[in-house]
Amino acid sequence: MEKLKHHIFVCGSARLVGENKGFCLQKDAVDIVLNFNEEIQDRDLDGEVMVTSTGCMGICSKGPIVVVYPEQTWYGKVTPDDVEEIVDALEEEEKVERLII
Amino acid sequence: MEKLKHHIFVCGSARLVGENKGFCLQKDAVDIVLNFNEEIQDRDLDGEVMVTSTGCMGICSKGPIVVVYPEQTWYGKVTPDDVEEIVDALEEEEKVERLII
Repeated sequence: MEKLKHHIFVCGSARLVGENKGFCLQKDAVDIVLNFNEEIQDRDLDGEVMVTSTGCMGICSKGPIVVVYPEQTWYGKVTPDDVEEIVDALEEEEKVERLII
Repeated sequence: MEKLKHHIFVCGSARLVGENKGFCLQKDAVDIVLNFNEEIQDRDLDGEVMVTSTGCMGICSKGPIVVVYPEQTWYGKVTPDDVEEIVDALEEEEKVERLII
């Protein structure tokens, strides 16, 4: 595999038993993923930046959770409106300090 | 958040619309996650190593997929029996070369 520059994981609260439920999902996880994909396409970041939804990360009280690797930046209480700012920060090799948990 | 030493993502083929289906799930993704959790507990790696299931990573032909961050090691065609060897390698700061994609 070509190495990604950034891999964004968005908690979608999926359970392995086949249900999607839980705090992050209620709180716009689907829109967060869609917005990341839109930003990645608009900025031609395909192949450099990938977004993947995840199962529950276990810190629901701070959800919706977004983790960016390899830098391991943990963001909490993310909204779909925060996505553009997060991608701006990625492109500048910076972080959105107000969302860090 | 305390930084994890390793974060293991296992493709569980979850779709954000609330279904779990697809190649990785058919191919033992659930057992792979359970085995990782068992190894993490047996070796007292809680807080250092975390395992999270993910939605489809889009490379189903090489599934089941496991990605380990921050080193971004992509493993393919992983079986539940490979988990112990992957965790051995993590503890030794090495990789399981035969599974790398």
